[in-house]
Amino acid sequence: MIFRNIYYLDESFAVRRGCVAARGDTIEYVGDSVPGGDFGEVIDGAARLLLPGLINAHCHVPMTLLRGYGEGLPLDRWLNERVFPFEDRIGGEDAYWGALVGIAEMLAGGVTSFSDMYDHCDRIAEAVRISGIKANLARGIVAFGEDGLYGSSRHEESLRLLEKWHGAEGGRILVETALHSEYMTNERTVREMAEFCAARGLRAYTHLSETKKEHDECVERRGVTPARYFEDLGFFDIPVTVAHCTHVTGEDIAILEKHGVSVVHCPESNLKLGSGVAPVAQMLAGGVNVALGTDGASSNNNLNRFEEMHAAGMIHRGVARNPELTPAAQVVRMATQNGAAAQGRADTGVIKAGFKADFAVLNLGKPHLTPVHDVMSDIVFAAQAGDVEMTVVDGRIVYRDGEFLLFDAREAMEKAAKSAARIAGELE
Amino acid sequence: MIFRNIYYLDESFAVRRGCVAARGDTIEYVGDSVPGGDFGEVIDGAARLLLPGLINAHCHVPMTLLRGYGEGLPLDRWLNERVFPFEDRIGGEDAYWGALVGIAEMLAGGVTSFSDMYDHCDRIAEAVRISGIKANLARGIVAFGEDGLYGSSRHEESLRLLEKWHGAEGGRILVETALHSEYMTNERTVREMAEFCAARGLRAYTHLSETKKEHDECVERRGVTPARYFEDLGFFDIPVTVAHCTHVTGEDIAILEKHGVSVVHCPESNLKLGSGVAPVAQMLAGGVNVALGTDGASSNNNLNRFEEMHAAGMIHRGVARNPELTPAAQVVRMATQNGAAAQGRADTGVIKAGFKADFAVLNLGKPHLTPVHDVMSDIVFAAQAGDVEMTVVDGRIVYRDGEFLLFDAREAMEKAAKSAARIAGELE
Repeated sequence: MIFRNIYYLDESFAVRRGCVAARGDTIEYVGDSVPGGDFGEVIDGAARLLLPGLINAHCHVPMTLLRGYGEGLPLDRWLNERVFPFEDRIGGEDAYWGALVGIAEMLAGGVTSFSDMYDHCDRIAEAVRISGIKANLARGIVAFGEDGLYGSSRHEESLRLLEKWHGAEGGRILVETALHSEYMTNERTVREMAEFCAARGLRAYTHLSETKKEHDECVERRGVTPARYFEDLGFFDIPVTVAHCTHVTGEDIAILEKHGVSVVHCPESNLKLGSGVAPVAQMLAGGVNVALGTDGASSNNNLNRFEEMHAAGMIHRGVARNPELTPAAQVVRMATQNGAAAQGRADTGVIKAGFKADFAVLNLGKPHLTPVHDVMSDIVFAAQAGDVEMTVVDGRIVYRDGEFLLFDAREAMEKAAKSAARIAGELE
Repeated sequence: MIFRNIYYLDESFAVRRGCVAARGDTIEYVGDSVPGGDFGEVIDGAARLLLPGLINAHCHVPMTLLRGYGEGLPLDRWLNERVFPFEDRIGGEDAYWGALVGIAEMLAGGVTSFSDMYDHCDRIAEAVRISGIKANLARGIVAFGEDGLYGSSRHEESLRLLEKWHGAEGGRILVETALHSEYMTNERTVREMAEFCAARGLRAYTHLSETKKEHDECVERRGVTPARYFEDLGFFDIPVTVAHCTHVTGEDIAILEKHGVSVVHCPESNLKLGSGVAPVAQMLAGGVNVALGTDGASSNNNLNRFEEMHAAGMIHRGVARNPELTPAAQVVRMATQNGAAAQGRADTGVIKAGFKADFAVLNLGKPHLTPVHDVMSDIVFAAQAGDVEMTVVDGRIVYRDGEFLLFDAREAMEKAAKSAARIAGELE
């Protein structure tokens, strides 16, 4: 495909107008002229903006089934009375349809890749396969008492996932490992996970210091912060991505930077659950790779990357009373390039020849995007997910003008609604 | 018109499914059965939600021309180097097209009425007239030295506006008075404005304690907070609406409650400009009528009420680390019923027989609104402005499926873009 006469973000994230051409799954040309040769479909870009596909670096996609369930409860009642009993009743088919609806939402909002930690990963992988999106999938390991990694049922599940799905669909699907969190594992498991990943060359994922309570309890119990705990056990010697970091300290930030740990900032989930506001400006200033995630739809309550950019761009300015924090261009990088780094995908997140043709096409011809003084500001502070009119993954158009080209989103919505209603009914 | 088989919010803001019928500009029936008689167009509401039209209770709509202009600068440089020089060059026709684009954005997002304080009000009123939206318009008075209200050029402008537009279009257009703020007026003007409004039965509007600097400087200069200053001068003895209140004290909140002053919370503008987070939970707990506003598009950067609801619903939970604050239903009331009260419009903001037929129709049949466990949570935390597929003002469909029925939005966008580019070019 070839986009002509279109606004795009170049490899340094400057706004340009020109031509972007892809052959197969790869970008072949980016620049001012129009290359010769047949690129298939020609797309005229008047009043259109080509963005690198957005990357949702933290999600639990089957939790789409819980969107709005248990609204407004305090955290412990929300988890114990609503989320956990609901999750206990999610079967494989429920998870599949919930995942597919969440994927539809993401594709319609310009997301080309997401990272997920949940149960039923085999069914999530199947939804990823048929929908055309990219994903890094992981089964979150929990361990109690003296249990170790090897032989645990969740690790066995991870091994099966790795064998079946890691690198599948031309690398569109990757499998990672994940520890749920400091408070849901033990030292032995953390050490064994680090060894396992090092031996296999795998990435790992965990939740880190999401709430003040979990952070403080770790300090009380172990005498060190969760970041220091993971560092001491060698977990940060492998490539790791951590979600939240709402309550990391200055020393924690130095640890994350030192080990090249990617952080996924989930501002809307952190606000909505009352977890707090992560020190993102300090992490960015400290050189940490900060990506953006939505978390699950149960705590957000959508998988809308534009709202997430909007929140990430505003909240730190407001709380610190400093409008110079989180410049718009930095937020766009967090949502694209930094997300690719957090996924260990070196071939996406930037519009550059040789990179994968992963794009979101934004229609700028709307009242709320008029006039255009500053495209980067418009992306972060004015655009809606609904302004995305085309999403391209590996050079394939997967979403266009409200239609999903590879699967029946209507069926997925009906099936997911039915699953959600059945489970909610069982719990009444 | 008659909506059948539709979800709607009843007068107590409970979600119901049934029928809502309007004749002329007024709601005639709300309930479970289908009333007899010819109501004109029949709209089947399957997977649709009828909301009271949203009310944007604080805007400067011609500032749409500045959307994204001066992004990321500190507040004083943003104002002095960008906003003020740009505003100096906005002529009447520029303001008209800027206002019309802003109105188009609002109508497309389900806004049926807005409150505005700006220059060129006569041209804004004309844009309101042709577009079909409702508005409360005011020319903001400033006064320096010993100047009084009477005889000032801005007050003369107010008098002309009142004569020409107050109550025009069957009450669709109302004219208010406005003082810019405590720091841009003097005691004599505040007193005279209170007397003038009392004599004429008019509402007044002002900005209050938007930044910590202006709040603290008032205390330093006058020995009282801005709220106390206005109270002492009798300004709160007339019906008043105040914007922001980012830095009001507990005593200020008691003053606002005592005098029935409406507060317009503008969370996104307050965050983006680094002004801070208003104590909204305390104001609501104290019985203050709190509405929602976007402020101008130059500090937001859009006029999107769904994003504003989303921000208002999340930010107070996150900053106070309490997910029980600002329940979704309360946020929806802030965006509708409380906004109507802040406009002194007793006949809108609620779906109830006898009230004006001001509606936003939301399409729930989208992946990001599936499944539906809690409609109120979906409105506040999952919906986008782009989910609005129809906006009705005084019983008249003014926006439907991307089309504006009463004016040429394409022309407005072109003209506004041209105005904005011309002014930005002059300032380069």
